[in-house]
Amino acid sequence: MNKTIQDLLQRYEIPSKERYNGTPVFTREPLDGTTEQTKRTFMGGVLETYEKLLGQMLKAGDDAVKTDLRFLLKLIQDLKKHKYKEQSKLLKGLHDLGNVQMDDRIIQGKALGELPWLYEEASSLTSSIRLERRRRRRQARKLRTHPSA
Amino acid sequence: MNKTIQDLLQRYEIPSKERYNGTPVFTREPLDGTTEQTKRTFMGGVLETYEKLLGQMLKAGDDAVKTDLRFLLKLIQDLKKHKYKEQSKLLKGLHDLGNVQMDDRIIQGKALGELPWLYEEASSLTSSIRLERRRRRRQARKLRTHPSA
Repeated sequence: MNKTIQDLLQRYEIPSKERYNGTPVFTREPLDGTTEQTKRTFMGGVLETYEKLLGQMLKAGDDAVKTDLRFLLKLIQDLKKHKYKEQSKLLKGLHDLGNVQMDDRIIQGKALGELPWLYEEASSLTSSIRLERRRRRRQARKLRTHPSA
Repeated sequence: MNKTIQDLLQRYEIPSKERYNGTPVFTREPLDGTTEQTKRTFMGGVLETYEKLLGQMLKAGDDAVKTDLRFLLKLIQDLKKHKYKEQSKLLKGLHDLGNVQMDDRIIQGKALGELPWLYEEASSLTSSIRLERRRRRRQARKLRTHPSA
């Protein structure tokens, strides 16, 4: 992968001064100090973004770069398919939420009717931080009782 | 909440025939058979959608409905604030991904440069399904050894 990327960067002639100007495209903030599941969901979004970006580059690129771009695209798609299936479904669900027609009166009425059930559901789910703490406590306990585990 | 919603629906004069036409605004599919964390993230998105929807209704509504709409909005915002902080941050991160300028050559080059690190990170995260299974196994074991827990 690294070799392919180096080759591509040379062909795209992007000087490293511009590449490392201190503002990365992908902020790592959502990856710091959150639960593993949150990281995974964000990573699912990152992979999806690369998929679109490489698709866009493929459309505009000449033949000299297409093989390399396709190689990277395949890597990303395989990873998504094998390890990010649930995240992909979730991201699709979230994306659909963005398409809700908020100024449609019928939609507004229907959404109001669905609110009690959804509010109840949202209130009853355990806090993810609490879940993670519980998980860590269990793990620590397990290590105390079975130090070889 | 139910009384407020009934009052609002009467004022908006939306016949129940239209409200229950078999296609809900919020699909429950992402809530079926997924992990608790996935549910929470989706629910965070649902709450955010309600926040926007009620904001939109507040702008267009007359004084007779505003008090009720504000009451519902406050309930949703409180729930988000107290139980969905991490989800809100994650959703913001995902939203930012949607704003990546994919046709900008500099952005393309920078993203290529960041790919090895991100790909490595995405490959190394444990599958959420595996995590959940492990969690359930641990819980079952705990219940077997401490039936009173």
